[in-house]
Amino acid sequence: MPRKQVVIIGGGFGGLTAAQSLRDADVWLIDRTNHHLFQPLLYQVATAALSPGDIAWPLRTIFRRHPHVRVVMDEVLSIDRAARLVRLRVGAPIAFNVLIVAPGSRHSYFGHDAWEQSAPGLKTLADAVYLREKMLLAFEEAERRHIASGTRDRLTFVIVGGGPTGVELAGALAEIGRKAMGPDFPNLRLDDLAILLVEGGSRILPGFTPDLSAKAVTALERMGVTIKLNSPVSEIRADGVMIGSECVRSTNIIWAAGNKASPLLTSLAVPQDGSGRIKVQRDLTIPGDSWIFVIGDAAHCAGPGGNPLPGIAPVAAQQGRYVARLIREETAPDQRRPFVYADQGMLATIGRAQAVAQFSRLRLSGLSAWLLWCVVHIFLLIEFRSRVRVMSEWMWYYLTFKPGARIIYTQPRQSGEEESTLPSRSVGSDSKE
Amino acid sequence: MPRKQVVIIGGGFGGLTAAQSLRDADVWLIDRTNHHLFQPLLYQVATAALSPGDIAWPLRTIFRRHPHVRVVMDEVLSIDRAARLVRLRVGAPIAFNVLIVAPGSRHSYFGHDAWEQSAPGLKTLADAVYLREKMLLAFEEAERRHIASGTRDRLTFVIVGGGPTGVELAGALAEIGRKAMGPDFPNLRLDDLAILLVEGGSRILPGFTPDLSAKAVTALERMGVTIKLNSPVSEIRADGVMIGSECVRSTNIIWAAGNKASPLLTSLAVPQDGSGRIKVQRDLTIPGDSWIFVIGDAAHCAGPGGNPLPGIAPVAAQQGRYVARLIREETAPDQRRPFVYADQGMLATIGRAQAVAQFSRLRLSGLSAWLLWCVVHIFLLIEFRSRVRVMSEWMWYYLTFKPGARIIYTQPRQSGEEESTLPSRSVGSDSKE
Repeated sequence: MPRKQVVIIGGGFGGLTAAQSLRDADVWLIDRTNHHLFQPLLYQVATAALSPGDIAWPLRTIFRRHPHVRVVMDEVLSIDRAARLVRLRVGAPIAFNVLIVAPGSRHSYFGHDAWEQSAPGLKTLADAVYLREKMLLAFEEAERRHIASGTRDRLTFVIVGGGPTGVELAGALAEIGRKAMGPDFPNLRLDDLAILLVEGGSRILPGFTPDLSAKAVTALERMGVTIKLNSPVSEIRADGVMIGSECVRSTNIIWAAGNKASPLLTSLAVPQDGSGRIKVQRDLTIPGDSWIFVIGDAAHCAGPGGNPLPGIAPVAAQQGRYVARLIREETAPDQRRPFVYADQGMLATIGRAQAVAQFSRLRLSGLSAWLLWCVVHIFLLIEFRSRVRVMSEWMWYYLTFKPGARIIYTQPRQSGEEESTLPSRSVGSDSKE
Repeated sequence: MPRKQVVIIGGGFGGLTAAQSLRDADVWLIDRTNHHLFQPLLYQVATAALSPGDIAWPLRTIFRRHPHVRVVMDEVLSIDRAARLVRLRVGAPIAFNVLIVAPGSRHSYFGHDAWEQSAPGLKTLADAVYLREKMLLAFEEAERRHIASGTRDRLTFVIVGGGPTGVELAGALAEIGRKAMGPDFPNLRLDDLAILLVEGGSRILPGFTPDLSAKAVTALERMGVTIKLNSPVSEIRADGVMIGSECVRSTNIIWAAGNKASPLLTSLAVPQDGSGRIKVQRDLTIPGDSWIFVIGDAAHCAGPGGNPLPGIAPVAAQQGRYVARLIREETAPDQRRPFVYADQGMLATIGRAQAVAQFSRLRLSGLSAWLLWCVVHIFLLIEFRSRVRVMSEWMWYYLTFKPGARIIYTQPRQSGEEESTLPSRSVGSDSKE
């Protein structure tokens, strides 16, 4: 093998870990943004508990002391396996002899792409800032209208999807709404604040055991969240959502129901699953190409029991380290031991001092799970020098409801009914694939 | 006088201080944004040294424990002196029997409003975020093009106007460019980085004494800033600026040359100066109306020697306190002592450990002036409980170049030449009056 030219698509947990684990190779790390995003805390930016800069680091700064890693801010349009190069939106194509594909996923609206306009999802920092402005403006408008008419639809938040993102968003909204916004908006009746968590299946957090799902339901309901199970959404409009035959009026609908892998993957021309993920080999390569790897949310990688591994940060990071090692050691395809995920457990935060955690044998809920969440999911995942400082800041902000995060950039513009409409989604609107 | 109904237009230093100093009155504080902005540090957000949330606080949170102050996020369209009410863009009109007008100022392009598109200015948080994205994308693009062609125009920053804002921007750009961006963009030749400070008059910082102006020139030039004096700008286009007969190619032009007061002031129908400021009486009222006050950047208030007081935070804050006292004590017009500005001096930061400061007798430059800047302009101006914590965070970030602030929300979109163009200025674009 000549001098290794490794191209990594995506600076998420998988791509970042791979780049950090590669040593004697020329590495190109391509990302559409200029930063690595600590996605597990994205919901806190969307609910104005943290600022964008608190959970994102410029990739160039991370790799400042790694001269063999070149950071490229660009979008990969296609992968040309025959010519061994990736084609970019802006820059010249980049040649590779080893490729790590880690582009992550976007939302899936299950064929109803028009719903996105009314029910945005949460994947990027731009998404989170957009949702934050929308939420803060909804409170402002409800405060302004409190005398004139009912404010229920302005203060009704509907979260579609009862997975970890939906649960974390619902819990964070309930907390920020009652504890932080309540005192700031004296004219609002907080009884008008309604947070609905709508799940099509029979329980929330289906990746967890049923007893933890039940504990999450209890904790959320105690915080004032209404949970609707077995409730598939049949229609979403700008002013409300149809849940079965019931119409819920709301101007704040958030989509947390489904993922689909990056459309870029189709250019690999190998089998994909129903969510668009690549069905990878046991060494995370694609069929017939022993130096093209797919990792993270883009990979359908069979775990124990045959189910695909979940799309969480520890899986992506371990996969990144695994493929980096194969590349570093130039392990021949027939010498490779299959990738095995070392289960680090699953955690979902419900609120301050409230979480559920599940390990192979151990199941925790409440404060102990929340403390574990702080340690495991933050402390272990971040691999930067300043982690103690960052961690202490986070904890402080998280406990004190950092007020600076509740800043609205936009200003009132149209008159009358349309005022709370955000100007447009130009910032980040084209982050969709 | 019946129960006082005080309406304050603007939550800047003047309006905020007035609202904090009023006690037994019903106060409406109207601002187009939801936050008070610490404008003296806005240039640090524009140069990615601080995050937006570090220098802004939600007005509602500030007045959480002041039930007599109602915060209204709305835009005042006009003041109806006869009917004693202000008309809003969104909400119902609000009646007053006392009015404090503190709407601040915007940029003046001296009749060339089209220049704003190519040379945005810096007044709001939205302006600062826009400039930050533009700067960060310029570096990204220059890095991407380093082989293909010259990158000079991408890395040429032209700042029009040698007042404090221009000087602070030029110094901060030079520092962030060389110290923070340099190591992150290994392919850039930092020799290609050019920062031009263009001033139409014969010296920079004309509000300071000539020896401090000269010291600022020396400090800036040592940091690599090129200063052009006696250089009025005759034309600004998207790709460059005409300075006299010289054409400087640059895609990064920042306007810091002139201010004009809010157009709202014309609805008061009293005399204004050439910048649109109201020529206030000695008690800061408008002629013929002893309970309508104009303060801050919107007021032309004669200082010692007859020159108008400068548009700086201490002036606005002192005026806010002064009018609040007149209102609190219901001082009759003929009993009022004129407003006298207690000179707190002027400070301009040039870089880390570099500033110029001027008091009545005392003149400082270098490190001592910078330390003074830290103490006086931050510690004394902020009147919040957490000022020690905020201050220590600022100092820490300021000294370490907080990397989280260097986040680009937008992503590459068009192909080819136009890539570095920002999508649009929808966020905050309508903040202009």
